[in-house]
Amino acid sequence: MSASSTLADRWALERIRKSVATAPLDFRLWDGFELPSIAGPPVATIVFKNRRALFSWIWDPDLNFGEAYMFGAVEIQGDLLRALEVIYEALGVKPRPWWLWQSSNDVSAARENVHQHYDLGNDFYRLWLDHEMVYTCAYFPTPEHSLEEAQIAKMDLVCRKLKLKRGERVLEAGCGWGSLALFMARHYGVTVTAMNVSSEQIAFARRRAEAAGLDAGVTFVEDDYRNARGRYDVFVSVGMLEHVGLADFHTLGETIGRCLEARGRGLLHFIGRNQPMLLNPWIRKRIFPGAYPPTLREVFERVLEPGALSVLDVENLRLHYALTLEHWRRRFDHASEQVREMFDDTFVRAWRLYLAGSEAAFSTGMMQLFQVVFAPGASNAIPWTRAE
Amino acid sequence: MSASSTLADRWALERIRKSVATAPLDFRLWDGFELPSIAGPPVATIVFKNRRALFSWIWDPDLNFGEAYMFGAVEIQGDLLRALEVIYEALGVKPRPWWLWQSSNDVSAARENVHQHYDLGNDFYRLWLDHEMVYTCAYFPTPEHSLEEAQIAKMDLVCRKLKLKRGERVLEAGCGWGSLALFMARHYGVTVTAMNVSSEQIAFARRRAEAAGLDAGVTFVEDDYRNARGRYDVFVSVGMLEHVGLADFHTLGETIGRCLEARGRGLLHFIGRNQPMLLNPWIRKRIFPGAYPPTLREVFERVLEPGALSVLDVENLRLHYALTLEHWRRRFDHASEQVREMFDDTFVRAWRLYLAGSEAAFSTGMMQLFQVVFAPGASNAIPWTRAE
Repeated sequence: MSASSTLADRWALERIRKSVATAPLDFRLWDGFELPSIAGPPVATIVFKNRRALFSWIWDPDLNFGEAYMFGAVEIQGDLLRALEVIYEALGVKPRPWWLWQSSNDVSAARENVHQHYDLGNDFYRLWLDHEMVYTCAYFPTPEHSLEEAQIAKMDLVCRKLKLKRGERVLEAGCGWGSLALFMARHYGVTVTAMNVSSEQIAFARRRAEAAGLDAGVTFVEDDYRNARGRYDVFVSVGMLEHVGLADFHTLGETIGRCLEARGRGLLHFIGRNQPMLLNPWIRKRIFPGAYPPTLREVFERVLEPGALSVLDVENLRLHYALTLEHWRRRFDHASEQVREMFDDTFVRAWRLYLAGSEAAFSTGMMQLFQVVFAPGASNAIPWTRAE
Repeated sequence: MSASSTLADRWALERIRKSVATAPLDFRLWDGFELPSIAGPPVATIVFKNRRALFSWIWDPDLNFGEAYMFGAVEIQGDLLRALEVIYEALGVKPRPWWLWQSSNDVSAARENVHQHYDLGNDFYRLWLDHEMVYTCAYFPTPEHSLEEAQIAKMDLVCRKLKLKRGERVLEAGCGWGSLALFMARHYGVTVTAMNVSSEQIAFARRRAEAAGLDAGVTFVEDDYRNARGRYDVFVSVGMLEHVGLADFHTLGETIGRCLEARGRGLLHFIGRNQPMLLNPWIRKRIFPGAYPPTLREVFERVLEPGALSVLDVENLRLHYALTLEHWRRRFDHASEQVREMFDDTFVRAWRLYLAGSEAAFSTGMMQLFQVVFAPGASNAIPWTRAE
């Protein structure tokens, strides 16, 4: 515990309160000094437990709020999710500076970035994901459907948008634990080549394919999407594009151009933005190194346009991601003792903030979830209507 | 009739044949000299009736093919539509040069551009449009539906995508002869303010509103969309964006930003491209001065992003426009004697080329028809699913 708060500490707290003036939050220092909400009844109290947390917030709030929260130097008493939502609403949109430079995620950087997040251990993810281990936005036919049902519904939605036909060859870039690849093979009779640079995920997926007797129809390849070869009727990628990074979007476009048949179709499912904006620096540091959620415009300009691909259909499912994250967060909270035993308290707090912060980002419209269906520009082998 | 063809004439013809080498077409000069297709059985014969037509094609084919055809100096014997399709396929995509400068369609230029095309006389358009006088892409639930049914289905599709609710206020930018405005008021009980700079169209629309007893619910305003004032629950624009021009896209975004309620929705329906590309110069000169069919990326970057609008849904209906144009072309051909009496033979040829050329552009994937649904980025008053 720091010493009693000084005038400078209280000035700093006032400055923080002003920076999110429209957010109904109380602010408190380690010695009990409090500044009440100036925006109506508070949804939570932000408690600074030492001077360093207070001033690090002023220095770089985007990074250090997360740092201080994860190490226990800031606490949020009350509703964490609502607190994050009102902060997002108060801050609004900060466009990406024009001078932004993004480093390239080359093949080895991409592997390392993926390893940091997705190789935390399948046992960890099993604690709070659905039975099928799908770690992307679900599709809830109604908000009352279960997470399990909604992940199946999402996979089926993707297959229906792609008009998969028995016997077709599918290339999947970034296949997670293999759920979609196995689903497509099982229910639509297609042959799938599924790529992923996470060795833990690929090993898990291969065991599932064998256990399900689907290893003839699904080939799991531990490799970067850039190394894909061969020609396919369908290209699909669910939840990978946000890890590619702007500087390497052209490599994804080139892969699609090289691998997709003239009468083929493709689908990209990814976290995006309405306006170009960097991912929160704390999320980039602690959760998703190298990640960048793009705007549709950036994807069209750098991935689809160079190969004369034609956009057929776009759907924004951001409210479904907010609900997916609510399910994950509740399950994670429920399993937090087990997570603490696997890792430590800092890990639990970091992941709680990440899950609640992501939910708030989708529920307040700071982030979007886009599904984009496309086809080669000259192909007339495209659906006549959505009802078809 | 020019004199017998010379070696230079035949060299020119050979050069033209090579410029579309993969197109199965025969080429013939005024004296009967012929170069047969080098790409299989020909779908048509291109006949140059004088030397000037031949060399003007070499000089600037994009402009002068249309000029020569419209003045009768080039004939296409055989299937006009197929001839244009194989030419488009042979030419492929020519991206817009990076140094392209587009002049602004300010309020007076926009009025003049619209006047040139849309004020040709309601009697003329009545000859070949559907009963409702809808001069934009229709939506055919199946290809067998009639044009009349498909235009109604299109208007209903737009209303359903916008989730119109009784009593809402709708702003329509570019309302044509008023069909959609009247349809929305009649079937969805909304109040519509519909703007258009074409005086002939507005006068016609007002008479329809009075005749239908809908003049209390629909106000037709003869003015530029940029002058729209007031606040609305819904913004809709069908077939206007392609006349706005890149340089003025920001004015459309500003209009939407100024007029749309925080919980509102909007829809843009427009002719677009997969890659940035100028409209054919002959079409710009003779048919649509000031027009530019944009890519989705250009629309998102210049119209939607600046106002933090969120893309909810995109559908590409280009095959529906090819079929719409087929209906129009057949009706136009059927009425060509009456059109000739109203105007002259040059007009008939120019419009035949425009209609067939547009159909070929949509059927070969050179042009797209996009419907984009959007909402303010922070609004959660958005559909849960498409089924809702």
